[in-house]
Amino acid sequence: MKIKNILVGQSGGPTVAINASLAGVIKQGISKNMKVYGAINGIEGVIDNKIILLNDIITENELHLLKQTPDMALGSCRYKLDTSDLNTFQKILDTLYKYDIGYFFYIGGNDSMDTVDKIHNYIKSLELEINVIGIPKTIDNDLVITNHTPGFGSAAKFLITSINEIICDIEIYNTKSVTIIEVMGRNSGWLTLAAAIPKFLYGEKPDIVCIPEVPFCKYRFVDQINKHFKNNNFNILVVISEGIKDEYGNYISEQGKLKAKDEFGHPMLSGAAKYLEQYVKEKIGCKTRSIELNIPQRSAGHLQSMKDIDLSYEIGLEAVNIAVSGKSGVAMIFEKINGQSKYNINTCDIHKIANYEKLVPKEWHNIEDKFVQKEIIDYILPLTKGNVDFQMDKFGFIKYFKINNYISNI
Amino acid sequence: MKIKNILVGQSGGPTVAINASLAGVIKQGISKNMKVYGAINGIEGVIDNKIILLNDIITENELHLLKQTPDMALGSCRYKLDTSDLNTFQKILDTLYKYDIGYFFYIGGNDSMDTVDKIHNYIKSLELEINVIGIPKTIDNDLVITNHTPGFGSAAKFLITSINEIICDIEIYNTKSVTIIEVMGRNSGWLTLAAAIPKFLYGEKPDIVCIPEVPFCKYRFVDQINKHFKNNNFNILVVISEGIKDEYGNYISEQGKLKAKDEFGHPMLSGAAKYLEQYVKEKIGCKTRSIELNIPQRSAGHLQSMKDIDLSYEIGLEAVNIAVSGKSGVAMIFEKINGQSKYNINTCDIHKIANYEKLVPKEWHNIEDKFVQKEIIDYILPLTKGNVDFQMDKFGFIKYFKINNYISNI
Repeated sequence: MKIKNILVGQSGGPTVAINASLAGVIKQGISKNMKVYGAINGIEGVIDNKIILLNDIITENELHLLKQTPDMALGSCRYKLDTSDLNTFQKILDTLYKYDIGYFFYIGGNDSMDTVDKIHNYIKSLELEINVIGIPKTIDNDLVITNHTPGFGSAAKFLITSINEIICDIEIYNTKSVTIIEVMGRNSGWLTLAAAIPKFLYGEKPDIVCIPEVPFCKYRFVDQINKHFKNNNFNILVVISEGIKDEYGNYISEQGKLKAKDEFGHPMLSGAAKYLEQYVKEKIGCKTRSIELNIPQRSAGHLQSMKDIDLSYEIGLEAVNIAVSGKSGVAMIFEKINGQSKYNINTCDIHKIANYEKLVPKEWHNIEDKFVQKEIIDYILPLTKGNVDFQMDKFGFIKYFKINNYISNI
Repeated sequence: MKIKNILVGQSGGPTVAINASLAGVIKQGISKNMKVYGAINGIEGVIDNKIILLNDIITENELHLLKQTPDMALGSCRYKLDTSDLNTFQKILDTLYKYDIGYFFYIGGNDSMDTVDKIHNYIKSLELEINVIGIPKTIDNDLVITNHTPGFGSAAKFLITSINEIICDIEIYNTKSVTIIEVMGRNSGWLTLAAAIPKFLYGEKPDIVCIPEVPFCKYRFVDQINKHFKNNNFNILVVISEGIKDEYGNYISEQGKLKAKDEFGHPMLSGAAKYLEQYVKEKIGCKTRSIELNIPQRSAGHLQSMKDIDLSYEIGLEAVNIAVSGKSGVAMIFEKINGQSKYNINTCDIHKIANYEKLVPKEWHNIEDKFVQKEIIDYILPLTKGNVDFQMDKFGFIKYFKINNYISNI
């Protein structure tokens, strides 16, 4: 029987580990003597037939570079498939057949798993022999069933490191101050819990931690700050998720917009931290500043966790084994081995993951509880372990893989 | 003759290298059998007699930790001495005599050198035998005479690394976008030139670079972006200094404030990048975002340049030698050895440095000129070289020196 080929794409928001999973798929595909094709800009590339053959591009050295490169080497998209749009599904099928694809891998988060689910169902309904596998990634760590998502551990490492350093920074002046750091996470507080880890490991800071799962009350917030000041704790560090909401479920980041307008008359798109900065200035009057840690949370490749990268690579390798073994319509997942900082790779039905969202469980909402702190440490810390031994360029900076350096006219 | 003691303080804004200079002063003082005292919160600690003996605290291991710790281990202040306030000068003198100080070192930027100048003049007018030495630091690199300032090289390394990673991030989507990154620098563009180095080394990005020394025209800015789009360059990366000004000398960051008010009726304190984000959205309508790289520019200890840290340490060591040799009223400076990436340490009269500001020279304003690019690379790149071999804690994170762990009630 003729060996079928592989097609792989990346989708959604970046992480520093998503290329490691891509490298795993390529490595295992090539080792099984398959042609491995890459879709440029995810499913858009499949629809528009923007496909490149990766076997010629990716040597052992490029695999190494790819593993250490943040974001999506093949480009990404945010495209929601409409099941009633059969024309688009026909285009996808045309591409899959054009390149004689037997195995389609899609690396992404919630929305991307929805794409996997729909393509799998379409192919199944036609009784075609193409196996479709979802490989998770997202710094948000909000996929259900899997113990964690590739990319989360490195983002956690970036946050812990940056918060440790910001703590050094805020303590230098002898005046009352409030520093509010906004961390990514629209609905879930996983990254904010990671940013709180310096408090759990070293005590004290960050002083106040707010996640979207716990209703935020700005009156209580100001009370908490004043209480710290009264206890001679003068340099308050607050870490909040971008998506914190009040008791009615309204985003705090929306509150400032109601009256604040830019000079063109548009609502100012300030974040939650910016709004709270203004609020604390108004209510307490002390030195206050807000910091959005922004894109580096998902792109700071130089702070990759080796554990995260290795696991992300392995889940890519294993995805190929699973597909070749005949499975389809599944997502790759991690299972934590009980009581150990080790993880098994397994699969689950894609429709159990697609479109669901894993929030921080209720038992972990009270982070002042020492038992909760220990559980959070035990969950997150193993995922941040180890530093990657980077290949550097001649100028002394980390060498990143750029697909544009290998091909033109894509 | 009895050996006199050392007093050392830190002042102004943080860098990741200012503790390395402190470590140098302590090391050399101890090796000369002197007592080394630290002033808590800079000159404020001298005035208020908040002084600690460092000999007992700083062992070889603590010196190592201190060198790798960002920000000011002794705390900082922003205090401008008023020469007519003799009461304050008397308090300073009381402290210096109480601890039998023969040598006073002050590590800081422009304003701190002003403090050194004033204390030196006061002591000289009384014909007292206390030598006063300024040790420079600032990520802004805006001190005159010295080739560069301690801390600038590490901040440059942080910026080059982060920009390289953000370039990976902005290129993943197949849609027109403008990303505007705001870099520290109120009057001088040194840090923004560092952020532009990926363009010089690897070509292309950042696409547009704006420094305060060159008047900013928002109409030309929009034209430049449109031109890039026309040339099929779709993901535009802009790097600006926080202090860019229009042709009349008005800060761009002030422009948005005129009409934008927060919900309390106060002017919104948005930065230049935020203002330009709104402006580009209004004029072009494409996806636009702004990023302030914020505090990590001066506190990202994990991206220290070994060259920067080593030079900062050596200038601290040498400051003690200079003081003991009898010099006073001088600042320590670096001189670049012609045609090499090596630096001599020397001194200059403090009043030649205090309160002056070094801007990016006119010859370097046209950064599209390849010759200029080479000169900027040759100036900045040697200061970013080498990675520090950090001492890590048991959790796998860099161990930072905290003076609070060693003393109480300061």
